[in-house]
Amino acid sequence: MSCIFCKIINNEISAELVYKDDKIVSFKDINPRAKVHVLIVPIEHIATLNDLTEDKKDLMGHIVLKSVEIARLLGIESSGYRLIANCGSDAGQLVKHIHFHILGGQKLGPKGQEF
Amino acid sequence: MSCIFCKIINNEISAELVYKDDKIVSFKDINPRAKVHVLIVPIEHIATLNDLTEDKKDLMGHIVLKSVEIARLLGIESSGYRLIANCGSDAGQLVKHIHFHILGGQKLGPKGQEF
Repeated sequence: MSCIFCKIINNEISAELVYKDDKIVSFKDINPRAKVHVLIVPIEHIATLNDLTEDKKDLMGHIVLKSVEIARLLGIESSGYRLIANCGSDAGQLVKHIHFHILGGQKLGPKGQEF
Repeated sequence: MSCIFCKIINNEISAELVYKDDKIVSFKDINPRAKVHVLIVPIEHIATLNDLTEDKKDLMGHIVLKSVEIARLLGIESSGYRLIANCGSDAGQLVKHIHFHILGGQKLGPKGQEF
């Protein structure tokens, strides 16, 4: 139980929550790369995308659909947003608990500094 | 039917396919931002993430799970990869047909040039 996202989920570490249901939590990234930057994290601890099994398809679909709702909550649905999931070393995945980034609130890339 | 991705799906425009099933196609990006850069595109034309409805949850879950399989096919499962979906203007979504990028084959970001 040394996973920082599990600790946030279990209220052992505080985070600025923007959304929560029985499958996922979404909270502000503590090191934002854009004006708006939140993470979506499944409550279930799954280390990386590579560890996904077929029974997690519904959970992954839930995350993608909820990203739209969370973008709406954050006021960036119309202006636009980027959904990112990093897996492994080349992508710089730091926390080994699957998480999707939502970035927005400003013009992103194509050669942006955000990710 | 002016959508370029629909034309690729319908074999009106050629593309270098890496994966295909009854729900999605995956092909190489013609303007790669990394050594490995492919797109995953649902066969069904859905303009943006904002246009997703609850009945598309399974399709979105399918895309996320298949991204792992495609990364494996491309030989970047272990080295790592980044899954990206852009929505709207701030994210620079160019083609108005939902697509997920898979980037890898090299160290990406955090201040990368790839996106």
